Formats: sequence, C-alpha cells, structure tokens
Amino acid sequence: MKALFCHSDYEPKPGYVLDEYEKTTGKIRAGNMVWRNPRLELTDIPEPTKIGPRDVKLHVKACGICGSDMHFIESTDDGYMLYPGHVRLNIVLGHEFCGEIVEVGSDVHEFKVGDLVVPEEMVWCGECIPCRNGYPNQCEHLEELGVTCNGGFEPFCVVPARVCWKIDSLRKIFGDKVYQAGACIEPSSVAYRSLFPIGGGIKPGAFCTVHGGGPIGLLATGLLKAAGAAKVIVFEISEGRREVAQKMGADVVLDPTKYASARDQANEILSLTDGFGADLQLEAAGVPRKTMPVILESTAIGGTVIQTAYAAGETPMYLPAFQNKAIKLVGSMGHSGNGTFQNVIRLMASGKFDPTPIISATFPLSRGMEAFDLSFKRIGAKVMISTMDA
Amino acid sequence: MKALFCHSDYEPKPGYVLDEYEKTTGKIRAGNMVWRNPRLELTDIPEPTKIGPRDVKLHVKACGICGSDMHFIESTDDGYMLYPGHVRLNIVLGHEFCGEIVEVGSDVHEFKVGDLVVPEEMVWCGECIPCRNGYPNQCEHLEELGVTCNGGFEPFCVVPARVCWKIDSLRKIFGDKVYQAGACIEPSSVAYRSLFPIGGGIKPGAFCTVHGGGPIGLLATGLLKAAGAAKVIVFEISEGRREVAQKMGADVVLDPTKYASARDQANEILSLTDGFGADLQLEAAGVPRKTMPVILESTAIGGTVIQTAYAAGETPMYLPAFQNKAIKLVGSMGHSGNGTFQNVIRLMASGKFDPTPIISATFPLSRGMEAFDLSFKRIGAKVMISTMDA
Amino acid sequence: MKALFCHSDYEPKPGYVLDEYEKTTGKIRAGNMVWRNPRLELTDIPEPTKIGPRDVKLHVKACGICGSDMHFIESTDDGYMLYPGHVRLNIVLGHEFCGEIVEVGSDVHEFKVGDLVVPEEMVWCGECIPCRNGYPNQCEHLEELGVTCNGGFEPFCVVPARVCWKIDSLRKIFGDKVYQAGACIEPSSVAYRSLFPIGGGIKPGAFCTVHGGGPIGLLATGLLKAAGAAKVIVFEISEGRREVAQKMGADVVLDPTKYASARDQANEILSLTDGFGADLQLEAAGVPRKTMPVILESTAIGGTVIQTAYAAGETPMYLPAFQNKAIKLVGSMGHSGNGTFQNVIRLMASGKFDPTPIISATFPLSRGMEAFDLSFKRIGAKVMISTMDA
Amino acid sequence: MKALFCHSDYEPKPGYVLDEYEKTTGKIRAGNMVWRNPRLELTDIPEPTKIGPRDVKLHVKACGICGSDMHFIESTDDGYMLYPGHVRLNIVLGHEFCGEIVEVGSDVHEFKVGDLVVPEEMVWCGECIPCRNGYPNQCEHLEELGVTCNGGFEPFCVVPARVCWKIDSLRKIFGDKVYQAGACIEPSSVAYRSLFPIGGGIKPGAFCTVHGGGPIGLLATGLLKAAGAAKVIVFEISEGRREVAQKMGADVVLDPTKYASARDQANEILSLTDGFGADLQLEAAGVPRKTMPVILESTAIGGTVIQTAYAAGETPMYLPAFQNKAIKLVGSMGHSGNGTFQNVIRLMASGKFDPTPIISATFPLSRGMEAFDLSFKRIGAKVMISTMDA
Repeated sequence: MKALFCHSDYEPKPGYVLDEYEKTTGKIRAGNMVWRNPRLELTDIPEPTKIGPRDVKLHVKACGICGSDMHFIESTDDGYMLYPGHVRLNIVLGHEFCGEIVEVGSDVHEFKVGDLVVPEEMVWCGECIPCRNGYPNQCEHLEELGVTCNGGFEPFCVVPARVCWKIDSLRKIFGDKVYQAGACIEPSSVAYRSLFPIGGGIKPGAFCTVHGGGPIGLLATGLLKAAGAAKVIVFEISEGRREVAQKMGADVVLDPTKYASARDQANEILSLTDGFGADLQLEAAGVPRKTMPVILESTAIGGTVIQTAYAAGETPMYLPAFQNKAIKLVGSMGHSGNGTFQNVIRLMASGKFDPTPIISATFPLSRGMEAFDLSFKRIGAKVMISTMDA
Repeated sequence: MKALFCHSDYEPKPGYVLDEYEKTTGKIRAGNMVWRNPRLELTDIPEPTKIGPRDVKLHVKACGICGSDMHFIESTDDGYMLYPGHVRLNIVLGHEFCGEIVEVGSDVHEFKVGDLVVPEEMVWCGECIPCRNGYPNQCEHLEELGVTCNGGFEPFCVVPARVCWKIDSLRKIFGDKVYQAGACIEPSSVAYRSLFPIGGGIKPGAFCTVHGGGPIGLLATGLLKAAGAAKVIVFEISEGRREVAQKMGADVVLDPTKYASARDQANEILSLTDGFGADLQLEAAGVPRKTMPVILESTAIGGTVIQTAYAAGETPMYLPAFQNKAIKLVGSMGHSGNGTFQNVIRLMASGKFDPTPIISATFPLSRGMEAFDLSFKRIGAKVMISTMDA
Repeated sequence: MKALFCHSDYEPKPGYVLDEYEKTTGKIRAGNMVWRNPRLELTDIPEPTKIGPRDVKLHVKACGICGSDMHFIESTDDGYMLYPGHVRLNIVLGHEFCGEIVEVGSDVHEFKVGDLVVPEEMVWCGECIPCRNGYPNQCEHLEELGVTCNGGFEPFCVVPARVCWKIDSLRKIFGDKVYQAGACIEPSSVAYRSLFPIGGGIKPGAFCTVHGGGPIGLLATGLLKAAGAAKVIVFEISEGRREVAQKMGADVVLDPTKYASARDQANEILSLTDGFGADLQLEAAGVPRKTMPVILESTAIGGTVIQTAYAAGETPMYLPAFQNKAIKLVGSMGHSGNGTFQNVIRLMASGKFDPTPIISATFPLSRGMEAFDLSFKRIGAKVMISTMDA
Repeated sequence: MKALFCHSDYEPKPGYVLDEYEKTTGKIRAGNMVWRNPRLELTDIPEPTKIGPRDVKLHVKACGICGSDMHFIESTDDGYMLYPGHVRLNIVLGHEFCGEIVEVGSDVHEFKVGDLVVPEEMVWCGECIPCRNGYPNQCEHLEELGVTCNGGFEPFCVVPARVCWKIDSLRKIFGDKVYQAGACIEPSSVAYRSLFPIGGGIKPGAFCTVHGGGPIGLLATGLLKAAGAAKVIVFEISEGRREVAQKMGADVVLDPTKYASARDQANEILSLTDGFGADLQLEAAGVPRKTMPVILESTAIGGTVIQTAYAAGETPMYLPAFQNKAIKLVGSMGHSGNGTFQNVIRLMASGKFDPTPIISATFPLSRGMEAFDLSFKRIGAKVMISTMDA
C-alpha cells in the first residue's frame, strides 16, 4: 500500500551525544540535532498484518496535515530538520486522523469491527511517575503516532485500543463530512486542553482573545464560543485565516499589524471589553515577544493568560502586571487525560462545535505530495488527506 | 403613587422570643414565626423624595413576581405567613426589577441620570466577617430589597448605587423587551451562581440534568446550554413549563411522574448519557426526597450535585455514592459576588442567553393584584409587572 | 513458606446471578453475596518463583491488619462474609505492607534489588475510560493486592513495579521502625487522599474535626496537624483510641457518647471554634446517621464535609445547611493518583508526620492467628505483622 | 503627642499631569512622580480626638518598619521619593501595627474598649466593581493606613473598625512578645496571601523554595513549614538573614552568589528534590531577572511559581518551560480578603507559626529616627518600634 513516508538521514550534529534513553529507545529528544535531509515520499510499504492483543487495525478515513508534520520535512540551511522535539524516524507521518476498525486484537473488548474511532496521538505509558501522578502529557516513555511510530497517512494503521475513542455519534450530525470532522478531533483536543483543563476555562459571559488564527487558534475560537464567551476577539495577520475565524464564531477579527504599538493594540482590547480587559487571552501565534506586551496590558483583573503555541527563546515579561491584576500564566502541551477527547466528541455530536470550517483543502492520498506542497504555503488553515485511495 | 404593599400583623407565635438582632434591627429571622394575616394591597404611598449620598432613585420599568413574593402573602391555617426566612415588614414587595435612574446621590459618580440599571436584591454590609472573607451571600447584616425594605412593585424606588449594574448594553439586542429582560437578571443570577461560582461549572461537552422547571430551573437550562452543555435533560411535572424548557434550549424534557421508580428514572438518565451518567445535576424542584435517589444513582464519576431550591426537613442520602463515584454536593443561595451579575449581563448582551421565554404573562402595576392571582396558580413560569402606571 | 490465607466456599446466595464481568474475571462485585464460611489459616504455600517482566518480588517486611481484612474473615449468621465489596478468593490477605526487592522483572529499570518499597494496594489498568480520564480509583478492571490476588501476609510477594514507591528515604528517620512505618503508608494514603486531593485540603490556620478515631481517623489527625490545622478536635468512643489521638497531635479529644444530643455536640464544636464552626469535618466513624446532624450544625461558612468511612444505607441530611453556609460534601475512596503516596512518603521522611503511634501491637507471622484474634477485639488501633518468620 | 511623620514637597515632575482621580482624592498614583525631598521627622502632632461612628481609636503597641516605609524616605538623585506606588502625603507612616482599643465609635458593636486588635493596612471601599467581584486588593478607591492616611508610628491612631481583627488569643502563647507578634501579622498576611489564596497552597509533603530572605521570604518560610512542606530551601545573600531563615524553619539555606550559573543553581534545587524539582517557588527577592532562569529550570511538573516581590522592568522568561512542565505563574499583592488575617492569627495562636524571629531590633518611638537609620542598613530582617513612649 502507499503511504506518506518521512525519510531522513541519521547524522547527529557534531558534539551531540545521545543519552541512554535515546540509545535504548531510538527516540531522539531533539529531532533537529540528529536527523538530516528529511524528505517526504509517497512510497509503497507493506500493509500491517500482525496486531498485538490490545491493538486495533484501522482503515484510515482522513488525516490532517499539522504544522509539526511540515517541520519534519522542512530543514535549515545545513539540512537538519526543523522539528525540535521528540521523534523516532523513519516513519509514516500523520497524527490527526480517524478510521474504521477492521480488526481487533485478542484482548480488545471495548471496540468491534466497524466502529469509527479517533486515536489520541500520545500513547502514554501509565507506569512512569508523571503518568501515575496524573500527568500523562508529561509521560517519560511517550510514544506518539506519526512521530515515533507509523501514523495516519496510510490506508491501514495499527494503534493501541487504549488510545481510541468511538465517534460513531458524529455520523448523524456531520453526514458526509464525518471523516474530516473526525480528523479534526486531535487538534481540537489540543485547543480544548489549553483552554479548559490547563487554562481553567471561563465563566460564561467572559471576554476572550485569541492571538493567532492558525488551526489551534481557530479551533479555540469555536470552543470559547461554545463555552459561553460573550466576546472572542481574534488577531491574525492572514486575511484568509481571519475569514475562517469569523466562520468559527469570532465576534471581532483584527489584523495585529495595523497597530502602531503594543499599547495601541492593548487599548483596542480594553476598548472592546468596556475597559475591563480580557478575562482569558490565548497565545496561539507563537510570537510571545510581540503578543505578551499586548496581553499583559489588557488582561482583566483575575484573568488568565495561556501560552499554547511553542516559541523558542525567552520572552520579556512585565511581572508586576501579574501582581497588580491578580492574573495567572499557564502553558499547555498535549491533549491526553481529563476527558478531553470525550468532551470534544460530545460537543461535536451535540452540534455546539463544528471544527470543519478550518479545512481549506482536501486531497486523496495519491495526491498527498500536492497536499503538503499547498500546506507549506500556509495560506489556508488546514489541508487534509481525505481519501486513502492506495 | 401606587405600590404593591405587603401588610401583616406583628404577632410572634407563643414561645417565640426575639433575639437582640431582631429587636434592634426589626428584621425577623423567620418570618413565619412572627407575621400573621399577610395581605397584599395596591395602596397609595408617598413617592420617595430624599435619597442618601450613595443612593440612586429609579423609575422602575419592570418587576417579576418571585416564588418568595407569593410566600409572603400565602399563609398556613393559623394565619402565619409561609415565608420562613429573613424579613422586615411592612414593605413594598418586589426584588426582580430594573429601572432608569432619575436622580443620583451626592457621592455617586459611577452612574448618571438616564442609566438603565438592575439592582442586586442583596445589600451586603461589607464589614462583617463573612463579607470580609468573601462570603457576601452570608452577610450578617444583610438588607434585601423587597424583603427587608421597599422593593420594585412601585413606580419609584431608592436603592444603594453599590448594588446596581448598568444594562444599557441590553437595549440593542432586546429592543422592546429590554425592561422585561432586565427584570429577569436577578433570578438568572441566582441560577448562574448555583451553577458556576458554587457548582464549579461544567467542562464544555458535559451532560447535565435540571430537576424542576420553575423559573430557576428554566434559567439554569439556558445558562447550561450557553456554557457548552452537550445535553441538558429537564424533568418537570407541568406540561406548560416543559414547553418553556424546550424554548430555553433543553435537549430532552421529561415528566418525572412517568417513572415507576427512582431507579427507572435514573436508568433513563444513564441511557441518555451513554451509560456514563450526568456530570452535573441541579436540584431546582425543592423535592430532594424524590430527586436525590434518582440523582445519586445517575451521576457520572467526578460529577457535581447542586441543591438550589429550598426544601425543609431532612433528605435521606445514600452516602457511598459520593465515595464510589467521587462526586460532590454543594448548596447555593443568593446571587452576590464573583462577578455574577456582570457575567449574566454580558451573556445576555452577547445574544448567548435570553431569559425572556420564561415570562408567561405581563401586567401593568394597576392590575398587579390580578398578576399575583395568576401567579398563585403556578401554571406558567414567570408573571411580570411590566408597566408602573401609577 | 507460611502465609495467612483466606479460605472460603463459593456459594452464591440464591437469586444472585453473576454478571459477565464476574464470570470472566473471577472477581465478585459483592463478596458477601457469594463467599461463605470464610476462615483464616496459617498455611503452607509455595514461594512464588516466576515473575513477569514488569513485576518485582518483595521480601515482605511488615504488613498491617486492616478493618477490611477482618471483614473478609467475619461472617453473618448465615455464614456469608461481611465484606460487601470487590473480591476474588481464595488468596493470601494483606494490603498494608512494605518489603525489600529481591528480584526484578526483565523490563524493570526503575527499581533494583535491595530497594525498600511500598506497593499501592490498587492496581489500576490505565486503559479503561475512568483511568484515561484521571480516575484510577474508579478503574473498571481493578486488581487489588490482598483482595483480588495474593497480598502481604507472606514472606515473599510478587507485585507490579508500576504500583511501587521507594521508601529508603525513611530509614534515617524511622530507624528500627522503618518497616512498620512503611506498612502504615497505605492507610495514611487513604487518609491523605480523603483530606487533600478529594477534600481540597485546608488553609493553614483552619479548625478541623475528625469523627471516629480508628486508623484512618487517627492518621488523618496527624496529617491535618502537619498541614497547618490550628485545631483538630477528635471524637472517639474508645478511651484507648482517644489516647492515641492525642499522640497523633489532636488538640482536643472528646467522647461523643457524653453529649445528650447532636445539638449539644454541635455546640461543643462551635464553642471550641470561637463560634465560627469547623472548616473541615471528616466522617471517619462510619456512623453518619449519628455524626452528620452534628456536622451540619457546626460546619463553618465555606467549609468542607468529607465522608471517608463506608456506611451502608441512607443518612438523613438537612440540605439547607449546604445552602445557608456554602458548604460542600465529598466522598473519598482509595489512594491512587495525585502524587498521594509520594507526598505521604516525603512528609514522613521530613519528620513532619509519624504514623507509627497508631500501632498497638506487633506479632511475627508465625503468630498471625493471634494477631487477628487481638485485632477482632478492636481495642487498640492497628495490629501489625512485623516479621515474616516463615 | 510625638509621631514619625513623613514630610515631602509637592512638586509634580515636568510633564506629569494629574488625572481626575488624583486631583479629587489627593492620592497620587505614582508617588515618585510628584513628591520631592521626603524626610522623616519625629514631630509633635495633636492626638486625634474625634472618631467616626464606625471607627475605633487605638493605643498603638508596636509598629514594624516595612521596606516601603523606607522607600517613602529614600530619594533618587533629583530628590524624588523612591516609592513608585499609590500615596497621599504628608502623613504619619507605619502600617504594620497592633494596638489596644481605647475608644469605639457609636456604631461599633463588634469591638469594645480593651480589645487588642490588628488593623489591615488596606481599607477597601466595598463598592467599586473589583470589590464587588471579590478583588478587594484591587479596590479602585483604596485607602491605606500609613500610606494615604495616618498610620501606626504614633501613640494613638484612629482606624475603621471594619479592618480590625481581634488578637487577644495571642496573649497566652506570646506573653511579653504579644505586641511585637501582633505587629508582624500584616507582613505575615502578605506572605500568606501569596502562598495560599493566590498561589493555591501546597499539598503536604511538597518541596518548596523561597528566593530572597527579606521579611516576606522569611515569613513565607515559616508558613510553608506550618503548611506541611517537606522541605523549604531558602536562597539569600545576607548571612544574617540566612541565620534567621533557619530559625524560621528552613531545611536548607543557601547563598545564591555561590553558583557559577543559573543552571548550577537550578541543579542544586533538582538535586535537593530528588530530581523532581520544587513544587512551589516563591520569588521574594525582587530580582526575577536573576531568579526566574533558575526557577524555570527547576520547577516540578505541575508546580507553581509566585512573584511576590516587586521588580520594575521586564524579565526574560523561557515560556516553553510552562508548557513542558504544566506549571503556572501567579503574582501577588496585598493581604485582604479570603480570611487571610484570620487564618494567620489562628495559626499564631495555635503555636504553629511564630513570626517574631524576624525581629532584629526594637526601639521606643522616642528613638524612632535611630530605628529607621538602622533599618536603612538592611542588615537585619525587621526593625520595630515597640513602645509608643510619646
């Protein structure tokens, strides 16, 4: 069968010494220190035929392209991949997917052939101390679908049953779009986790901002409206994405490049919130050096600031703002635990949250290279492989 | 000017000894122990002409009839009023109201003549230890509009500025109904407080129940939907109120009298929640002896049970349910603090929450006696005095 | 080797139909419906020789007798065991123990031979939906050491590495008593979980009560003092246990049978708390029909009530107390997750919490039958098997 | 009578335009922009003879010198005072004090002559929106004893009854030192608020650090130990203050200047916490540019970082640390609300917390100038005026 495979050369940078974990597991802590000349290929690979007792085999139905998928393929001038995180290559990419179960392992009782399911990307061990203490997203032995083992850009994928969630309940409300909707659950869960389990959520009637209208920011916009935000203000530089933000329910959509200063932009937020400031501000742009000065001048008393996009380096922060206004800052990563997938699925099944407006283009797997080419242009929000015709 | 005045005879029941607080303040802790032969009259009273430096004088625009207003007038066989709570008589009733400011006290800077405002009913002192510790609803020197001093069933009412909230923002979205909407804010805040500051709110996607479709249960239904409940199941015995529940957004509306047993009703809830049970259950019926057995068999792991209606006497509770399912029980009273009024107003201004479907009839003040007569029949949800034509 | 073994006859009560879970797993949901004529024997059993790849083999050093151990052996008139919970027989009892690792499985890297460890009793699956959502104590496939598989009343016991915690840090502070201290960690974690992860803990300076001075109540007393309780008031009927309560740090120790009424006992609590009431009240007596009327009349505004002892049947509760005083009720079960074992161990290693005063007698395994005989008398607090001389 | 009076010249810096609030109230938002040539004098002022109906008149018993008291007197090269905050001059300084009531206003019922009380420094209005929403420390009309009106460096001081707390309960445990202990309650409450209401407290058994052993850091050390911290590590550059830290219960006391790098210091923390990192880190040094790099590399998963000292300017922060380790940052200011004073007093009365080791010197009021001179040297921790002999 065909699959979108990430090939790369194992060439640790001079001076990079692999630690014991990396040596024994083959997982590298910082992909950009080790993997060179990454390239995506639509290759023939054998269909998986053996599944473990607690695995299920999926016929993949749709799989979205994530920003991190692009970072696996993109490289710096010296040829090293951009992706700075945890990765084991070479593998089939894709971690935002859903599929129908075509086979269940001998010890799987909670699923049956024909069930439509979405797997979590993060396969936490359940045995390390962070897992035991309730921090699965900080698992010390994490495996990640499409990152440390084969993912969803292939017709058939084997995944552990214990990371799957049933989504047949979405068929009725999403109809023909159920597979694409299903492939949006993983990024929706990333957004959900940042807002609710990590951010602590909002009181209905809150004023919110979303800085950055990429997929996570757009999905967060829809989730905040579903959660009772009285007003969601989205700042996004791309006109196309600003339009999508409106479809996701944003009340006000603005271009952050129009402001002469952070103070001006903060004043806009203050003005739009009757002078009180925003109760929740989400940094989903990955440019906190630009957004944090705005945020810290425009957060309401008792408000919450959430960093959800990754941004390398240090960000200058005016700490008295936290003291003067009793605000808090949290950072979010991952999507596991806390019932997050379950709640996202229920919200979608209820009709209160539709992530599909973020999908800007769909391609069959056979045209997967084109899909990535389009994605690299970063003009729409989410490009998706919607048929595994191979 | 005319006002709906509650007259009553001061006749402490034999053996009832007033304590120092009651003697010095004239406020009785348990109205039904002291006040006899209560009767409502549409009487002439002088328009208030003096206002304190921190008061505002309102031209009342609408005022709803609350269940407690009826309990002031209704009495037992021996003639004592039903209302068992804190009260100072004789006064003009009415605590669910809004009005336009026609005069401001000398030290009032935050409001001006012409502002449309809603007062909180509870006038907490800010000086007792509960107030200082953040529990204004447990204030030891509480005054209550329409309960311990004159309320809103009169054309002009003087209230402290510090309990008022501006609601001009509602004019645009509610249009002609803005006054009626404004008069719904107080009971909406009672419902909001029980669900959010006290109940801790829900994660979007939650399954919820509301037991009892009186005004508080109906408003809670709308608030839960606004907050992202995937499903709200309302149980209510009156067909008329069940219809209103649907208008308020209930996903499933059921008659609790149709079940042969608590177990049957609990099974219905389990079935409607995919076997997981409800994440939040609100007791707004005032019959916990009937509802709690249902609730404790059908609450989800980690769920919340909220007692918001008052019910005298003791309720048998199966406590192992709390242990087996890690659930919690909280009780709610009042509406002050925590930004509750502010959030309700923002939610209404944003179009995400409309309380007005609960209004079943409106009358001018001149027909106030008819309004009460209709209200006593308890067939609709909320009867309102909508014009102060006197 | 010798072990304290629970023998019992499999005789489901007439009409009791085993469900699929019970049939396939051999675990019975309600032991008292199925197991008859339970008897404890000090029997010879083979030393375990095979261990799984993720198991460790312990040389057990000490193991306490829990109330539930007694309920496995005690029976009603018709011969059925008292224990009403989840159980798989016949097995070696004992779930409050610690031991030294004498062998590690092939995939165990976090422990080595010689480590002193304490296992959690609850072996949660990590795969069911409660486990995935952060509720391991509500695991649907729970195994329990000494309850559904062999426990600690034997010289050598094989347990999963993933439920073990290192306690070598206790050697320095506890010296000769380290093994007995280690065997107190499991019940201390049950008490800790009820107070902190479930109860939400206290603000330092809080006033607290503990109703019931059995092992959990006594350990809770020490934990509350360690957590900054300004005053802990313990109610206990046994004089011997009242003395232990004082050793655990109780500020006031009282006999609940001395009060003429619940009101009198509540007044005592109010008087001891300057009229404010207790901020946290722990029901560890298992008689909520007696304690809850006291508790609900004497809890402070904003206070917490925790049900931690199991009590069959229903308890009449005055629900307006929850509303009038903004109090909450929670129930606790188990000890897993939330870093509970880790925190208890750290607290013990720091010298801030010593559970060993609850140990009233110790016996070698060879005299285990005597140990149980003494335990059945319920005069001291905790009887322990402290040498596995067999 | 004599009083320590702060004289200063009203000379707004060129370009500084007073806003309406400053003009009407006389309170300046940023003292260092307006007040020049500040100087402390031991002056004769008339004893206050009139008190309002809700005031009490105190015979002051002891009053500590706070860092901000020094900032009122210290000035920059151009002569402007250092204090950058909210202030109304000229006044008697002193906000950390206690006293005996010598007269009560006509409407004061909760106190009587002879009561020993401590006033909160912050006199919140209870009427602005932050106050109404539960944020008294963010009051828009704040008055502050010893900052915007006369404070405690005088024999007799009139304060509102509603900010006083009784402390007669401390007499028994503190004996002769009760007045000095009472004068430590205000700064203890500042430390308490940062750790508990704002920081969310700790689970007993937690590992904690305190960066900076000034009065707040030292008091926080004692409070963390009282709250069940298994280990408190204090970093402080002054040897004298390191000694006081040990008296306050610190488990490890270190000099931050001994580390070659932030990484080295972070490694020390990791090493002292078994590799897990600290669960709570308090920035009480006012040099976050130095401490935050250490803190962000050494905070445990799920940990909390609290900024409690004020530090002008921006601090570079590595935000991915918040995401990778699920940590949160909060900032604290003030001491009002949440039962903070009440809990500090109870904790002191119970013998679990003694703030008096921080007192390094005491002087009578007649030698108040010397007391300030010593304080300016910042060699001890807290200098106190302990007799109002004037």
